[in-house]
Amino acid sequence: MIEVKSYLMGAWVAGERKSDLLDPSTEAVVGSISADRPNLGAVLEHARSAGGPALRALTFAQRGVILKGLSKAIHTQREALIEVSITSGGTTRSDAKFDLDGASGTLAYYAALGAKLGETRLLSEPSEQLGQDSRFFGQHVWLSREGVALHVNAFNFPAWGLAEKLAVAILAGVPVITKPATSTSILAFRVAEAIVGANVLPAGAFHFVAGSVGDLVDQLGPTDVLAFTGSADTGAKLRGSRSVVGRSTRVNIEADSLNSAVLAPDVEPGDDVYRIFLRDVVKEMTQKTGQKCTATRRVFVPRGQADRVIEDLSAELSRVKIGHPGNDEVRMGPLATKQQRDDFRSGVAKLEASGARVVFGSATEVSPIGVPDGKGFFVAPVLLRADEPSKADAVHAHEVFGPCATVCLYDTADEAVALVARGEGGLVSTVYGDDRETLRTFIMGIAPYHGRLLVVSAKVADKTITPGLVLPSCVHGGPGRAGGGEELGGERGLRFYMQRTAVQGDRALLDKLFEGPKA
Amino acid sequence: MIEVKSYLMGAWVAGERKSDLLDPSTEAVVGSISADRPNLGAVLEHARSAGGPALRALTFAQRGVILKGLSKAIHTQREALIEVSITSGGTTRSDAKFDLDGASGTLAYYAALGAKLGETRLLSEPSEQLGQDSRFFGQHVWLSREGVALHVNAFNFPAWGLAEKLAVAILAGVPVITKPATSTSILAFRVAEAIVGANVLPAGAFHFVAGSVGDLVDQLGPTDVLAFTGSADTGAKLRGSRSVVGRSTRVNIEADSLNSAVLAPDVEPGDDVYRIFLRDVVKEMTQKTGQKCTATRRVFVPRGQADRVIEDLSAELSRVKIGHPGNDEVRMGPLATKQQRDDFRSGVAKLEASGARVVFGSATEVSPIGVPDGKGFFVAPVLLRADEPSKADAVHAHEVFGPCATVCLYDTADEAVALVARGEGGLVSTVYGDDRETLRTFIMGIAPYHGRLLVVSAKVADKTITPGLVLPSCVHGGPGRAGGGEELGGERGLRFYMQRTAVQGDRALLDKLFEGPKA
Repeated sequence: MIEVKSYLMGAWVAGERKSDLLDPSTEAVVGSISADRPNLGAVLEHARSAGGPALRALTFAQRGVILKGLSKAIHTQREALIEVSITSGGTTRSDAKFDLDGASGTLAYYAALGAKLGETRLLSEPSEQLGQDSRFFGQHVWLSREGVALHVNAFNFPAWGLAEKLAVAILAGVPVITKPATSTSILAFRVAEAIVGANVLPAGAFHFVAGSVGDLVDQLGPTDVLAFTGSADTGAKLRGSRSVVGRSTRVNIEADSLNSAVLAPDVEPGDDVYRIFLRDVVKEMTQKTGQKCTATRRVFVPRGQADRVIEDLSAELSRVKIGHPGNDEVRMGPLATKQQRDDFRSGVAKLEASGARVVFGSATEVSPIGVPDGKGFFVAPVLLRADEPSKADAVHAHEVFGPCATVCLYDTADEAVALVARGEGGLVSTVYGDDRETLRTFIMGIAPYHGRLLVVSAKVADKTITPGLVLPSCVHGGPGRAGGGEELGGERGLRFYMQRTAVQGDRALLDKLFEGPKA
Repeated sequence: MIEVKSYLMGAWVAGERKSDLLDPSTEAVVGSISADRPNLGAVLEHARSAGGPALRALTFAQRGVILKGLSKAIHTQREALIEVSITSGGTTRSDAKFDLDGASGTLAYYAALGAKLGETRLLSEPSEQLGQDSRFFGQHVWLSREGVALHVNAFNFPAWGLAEKLAVAILAGVPVITKPATSTSILAFRVAEAIVGANVLPAGAFHFVAGSVGDLVDQLGPTDVLAFTGSADTGAKLRGSRSVVGRSTRVNIEADSLNSAVLAPDVEPGDDVYRIFLRDVVKEMTQKTGQKCTATRRVFVPRGQADRVIEDLSAELSRVKIGHPGNDEVRMGPLATKQQRDDFRSGVAKLEASGARVVFGSATEVSPIGVPDGKGFFVAPVLLRADEPSKADAVHAHEVFGPCATVCLYDTADEAVALVARGEGGLVSTVYGDDRETLRTFIMGIAPYHGRLLVVSAKVADKTITPGLVLPSCVHGGPGRAGGGEELGGERGLRFYMQRTAVQGDRALLDKLFEGPKA
């Protein structure tokens, strides 16, 4: 039994009322978390008055050293944390590593960026002369916002989600109050323990809130920022909050996304690109039981190739063993909660009602191995097919958050582009093909609706990443339904936590102020 | 009598019900505007389906040529438009030029930027290798959003406000639906006529809505953008709209701002810097009758200098002739509406109740020249003094939108910085001084709370701009109370209308796609 505690103002604090935490593989109670609704005003004030100034006093290089320490702290405890993920979060060993190595890797990436940015506290853009006189110049500089970052994380990446947001905020000089999702909070708690245990962060720079944040969102002010990953519904609630609407609290939201994979007409079965396409679709459906914001939900295939593609995907999917993640044979564990299993089942029904039909698997039948009979929140992978995808509204609008994708048939490249856009904004789309003019049509048409676009062509087929992998060097987020936000992207991500100011004045003076090591 | 019409889907349309438009100098009825509440769904659809594709088909260079045509159209009619501004908007000739030359100048600036960006349709950032293999690269590119820009403008810059937003959106490839503020819509209408008359924009790229936009804001979708300049209250309503909250319609808001001028302790009366400080404060209080979002509202002065500064400012202010803007002697015209005069009076009372006292002028007494007795929405400049500004909450929170500023006394540079920050985010602050360490304290402390910071030191005293001048090359906007937005800033401004996408793939392929003239 693990009691998930909060870390507030330098102390670990347990809740008064408690609610149970279940292992989604066995439904056994494995821990508890606070069920209180606290007033965190004092925590906010402490982060602002102690954590903020302490971080802002450090240079990027010094903050980078801190991040390196945090990365090491997580990596050192890797084996123990993997075990926690498997036994409390229902993740396979491979899925646990994806989350944990993502966490330590992103911290290490931003540690290196800190070293690269060096002994300064601001980012500056090239200066430019503003008028007739060569002395009067303008320079846009970025300084840390003098507020607090509230991070509200999703259940699916308890380690990575916490760490990637933390890395960027800390490097930008902004203290963090982070809230894990309840269902997978045991791993987040262990990661928070590792972060605190590393003993490298200044006092007040890191707070971990287990359970409700009370009305903390409404207490945020004009210099604070709010970053959220999760459902579109909760995202809308946060964006409609008093702080965001009335006080310009800066907000970043990463929400639902009907990510797509598009097979170009020129790809033949047997091509390397075709092989990678199959590998990716299966991986994106089943990795972390399909509970990734970047998982592929829609697979666009030329009409003539649909039967073959469905046959090949079905063959691959049939090899995926489902069951207790502690079992070595198992490739796919349970969904994270009972509610999510219910939503998965009703979601597949919604897609069917919209005109798609199940061609592999079943939303209701599953035989997991290595678990007590009838226990655990397991589902099988479900592949659907939409012969007339333009009529299947739900396929483009309803994200089934589990191992589920719909093969959508298309006739022309322009039609495929229009169908992809029906998702109304997504995190990632992947195009598989080689014909340059077709790729141009796909890329120019699809890119404006996405934060990221992966192009898998023959020459990089064996060198590419899987679509669901979020690299810290590229932006992560997407317009519209995906929340309209941007995270990561190397130095780009820092800007959310900083304020750009156009400073106008004497060039020589500005140069001395902004380019010296004391800035 | 001028009837302000809408320009919708290629035709000028008058309203069915009408409301009167008054000349604020004489209160005479000079025109009318629609009082209907239209459904603009068809206009939105027309802009999306006709205007968007037509603009996106053009390169930046081609869109730049269009902007050049628009700039020329306004400049050609400069004299007639100045006359309209004076006779319908209550602006002096100088104020009218500030607005109109700002409009044509900003269009010309973005025309030149279009030429510089050249024969391409996307902005790209440097690419970078993503993994071990030198073929697999990531490149962040910006493409036009496939939606519509709704521009909701403020009354104070009927020409510039319309044109600066239009210039950026059109160059970015996004069609515009623009709505002027009702009170000064006659000039905006004449500017819109000039824009339409130039006959250079593709069909559907420009719509002008006189009067209410109905529920258009709620009809905006995930690829549309909404840019607003005006009061914080209306800004909050727009940011809380169904589109922004629920569909990630991108929003930019520029709202209230307690802009500040800070006189450093090292400046002596008689210095060039002191002279410019006096000139600026008086100009920012009285230009456009203080109805500029960038006007100075708080003047921070070392305690020992306060009496002298107030004496000097009062002497300057006493020379400002108030009256009908058609009169050559007049330097300050009326406020734009009766409501604004009422708000000005109650606003000054609010500052007094908060602990500031009037040291020059009066909110209720004024003797304008050249107007019928008792007519017109005139007020006199009012200077207040706050000896204990840390206790005068309203001075830092309530923007009196007219010729009014409060001299706030400070003892140390750190105290001044903290007082400036009490504005909770502003558009612009100006620091007057020469001592480098003091300037560093001011700049580093004040910049994070502002979108722009003007530093007036001895070497640029005669070369600097006035604080209220918004240059298209520098960002305009500010955090917190100022709305949290950014406009202009050269190429920076285009990004609001575009989507950044991280494209990942074969380097050689991406290079060919994005660097060629066909992109």
